[in-house]
Amino acid sequence: MNRSYLDHASTSPLRPEARAAWHEAIDALQGAPGRIHEEGMAARVALETAREQMADLVGARGREVVFTSGATESIMAAAHGAIARSVDRNGPHATHQIVTAVEHSAVRRAVETHGPVTVVGVDRTGRVDPDAVIDAITDETAVVHVQWANHEVGTLQPIDEIVSACRQRRVLVHVDAAQAVGRVPVDFRALGADLLSLSGHKFGGPVGTGALLVRRGLRIPPLLVGGDQERARRAGLEAVPTLVALGAAAAVLADEARLGAEIEASHSHRDRLETIAASIDGIDIFGHRVHRLPHLLCLGITGVEPQGVLLGLDRAGIAAHSGSSCSSEALEPSPVLEAMGAEADRSLRLSVGWDTTANDVDRVAAVLPDLIAELRELATTI
Amino acid sequence: MNRSYLDHASTSPLRPEARAAWHEAIDALQGAPGRIHEEGMAARVALETAREQMADLVGARGREVVFTSGATESIMAAAHGAIARSVDRNGPHATHQIVTAVEHSAVRRAVETHGPVTVVGVDRTGRVDPDAVIDAITDETAVVHVQWANHEVGTLQPIDEIVSACRQRRVLVHVDAAQAVGRVPVDFRALGADLLSLSGHKFGGPVGTGALLVRRGLRIPPLLVGGDQERARRAGLEAVPTLVALGAAAAVLADEARLGAEIEASHSHRDRLETIAASIDGIDIFGHRVHRLPHLLCLGITGVEPQGVLLGLDRAGIAAHSGSSCSSEALEPSPVLEAMGAEADRSLRLSVGWDTTANDVDRVAAVLPDLIAELRELATTI
Repeated sequence: MNRSYLDHASTSPLRPEARAAWHEAIDALQGAPGRIHEEGMAARVALETAREQMADLVGARGREVVFTSGATESIMAAAHGAIARSVDRNGPHATHQIVTAVEHSAVRRAVETHGPVTVVGVDRTGRVDPDAVIDAITDETAVVHVQWANHEVGTLQPIDEIVSACRQRRVLVHVDAAQAVGRVPVDFRALGADLLSLSGHKFGGPVGTGALLVRRGLRIPPLLVGGDQERARRAGLEAVPTLVALGAAAAVLADEARLGAEIEASHSHRDRLETIAASIDGIDIFGHRVHRLPHLLCLGITGVEPQGVLLGLDRAGIAAHSGSSCSSEALEPSPVLEAMGAEADRSLRLSVGWDTTANDVDRVAAVLPDLIAELRELATTI
Repeated sequence: MNRSYLDHASTSPLRPEARAAWHEAIDALQGAPGRIHEEGMAARVALETAREQMADLVGARGREVVFTSGATESIMAAAHGAIARSVDRNGPHATHQIVTAVEHSAVRRAVETHGPVTVVGVDRTGRVDPDAVIDAITDETAVVHVQWANHEVGTLQPIDEIVSACRQRRVLVHVDAAQAVGRVPVDFRALGADLLSLSGHKFGGPVGTGALLVRRGLRIPPLLVGGDQERARRAGLEAVPTLVALGAAAAVLADEARLGAEIEASHSHRDRLETIAASIDGIDIFGHRVHRLPHLLCLGITGVEPQGVLLGLDRAGIAAHSGSSCSSEALEPSPVLEAMGAEADRSLRLSVGWDTTANDVDRVAAVLPDLIAELRELATTI
């Protein structure tokens, strides 16, 4: 059976361009980029090309791109580095951090490993009030973490206001753009943030890749030490063939027309999915109706367990997701939905991407209404 | 021109078996292993197979294997986790660490980010005295870090004595086996260490992979948090296709006869290289003559700059390395050689591996003596 993969927000399948580049690089490159020999030089050149490609997609300079093993590492490195810098400049008490209540668990957990944290709430759409973030800033604030867009409900945050307020107050600001890069135009220079985290596999690059953008002139101590790779900002031999594939995925979307076309297609698929959902009784649509990502739809389904919905969809050839984006095998209540005041344990997330077709959406139309009706009947019978 | 790659100790070329598995997994696997759908399940099965293969190579249980992005991350995670556990159990002052003077820079730098450190010296062969390590243990010692084998000169450390002494004193012991795995038999269970770090690319697996072995029953807080991947011991989406390739490389060497044959071949190539070196005047051979890895040879060459030697070898088709194993583009004096009391800035490291042939060694015989003679003559002329 051919499948309809509607879980792009968890991980987006590898793009053909990235796949081709990966296969080629695996066969061609073998040296360590720091070494004085032909193999090392070839690896170095390939790595720096990938860096420029990544920088192009997000409006950054090549030197602002620090490659990592993924967004989780980027986020940890941002928190670690920002805190260390703040302590160094403003003393041992300058470890206060601010986060929104709907950050990804990677951010929520990363900040817990340091000093005091202020969690700023959100409205029913999952949006944070910039003034609430700004009011939370104290003399001891080391860094403000704010996501570009939410991973579960798709709401876009007012990052321009938050970033410029932080810059005015000379407080570092870190933007988690893992769910946004490749889905909306991202311009690091125009935004003016100090730090920005991104994930490769979320936009069709390989798993095990990510980057931390570090604003020109900003120096923060690295999380991983012990080697001078990445201009001494991230130790460990560079995963060159895999980063070449990341560069290839970024190059696809650095073409604005291509990104625009993908956004439009995602938008149209998502709108159709939303129409299908709206035709079913007892379904809530979560997230902001205007300020939102084009590719994901989060539904609250009254009266059915999410596990049953996922298994039923999977049997019908549809891959989807429910609840929080962490990797727990158990489905736990979503902290994002809790923070929005929504029912947190009956959500279904459908997310589209570069390989989604109208047929995939047709399949949801053919399967979802009946599946929910069946599961509800079953729940009443028991 | 075909090349002679004699820099296996920096990074060993990808084995054909790992390459084939990697290509295949890139095309076949796309889901997130934690998800409730077919794509996720397939990724989960592949990941757990790779884990068992990795465990088999090093005499560990599958559950003791935590996959990481490389040895640098494994080492950071070991230091971070051991310190946090010690503070939790024995109070805020229990942050003392012990290292040998010849650890890789990843270990030397990782320990600096925590509390006080005792550095235990080595003899002229690069070997540490187990009693000196044991004497350095105090009531506040959180963890002892010791390498299985040295990355620059190949000397094997007396890890059995050190590990059992630490276990008797109930002090955690972390073994950095990055240069040893795949080169000598490694048996985690028989050794009895608490933690062991390893690197995938050092034995012909893909770059960007590694593991931290965590002894059954030992719980340490993770370095990367924010997701329940790796049984909540390392957050971040698993790099499944790349880890499948790591598993395939491990499976090759888990065959004892194959490992034995590779060790014997390396030994024989290294011995021939040593004979060639010994025939040249003014060359020292560094490292222990008996307790050493089979695949690497570190030479001290009087009267010539290492950069000239490397460039000359590269022009003749030979890739080699000099100095410390960190990625600095500049060649700095080697801390390992300094600790051994040897001249630290004129070393040449030749290292062989699975793809080395007698022709590669012949080429060194044909090139190295003349090259050194030329460079010496040049140095005298200037």
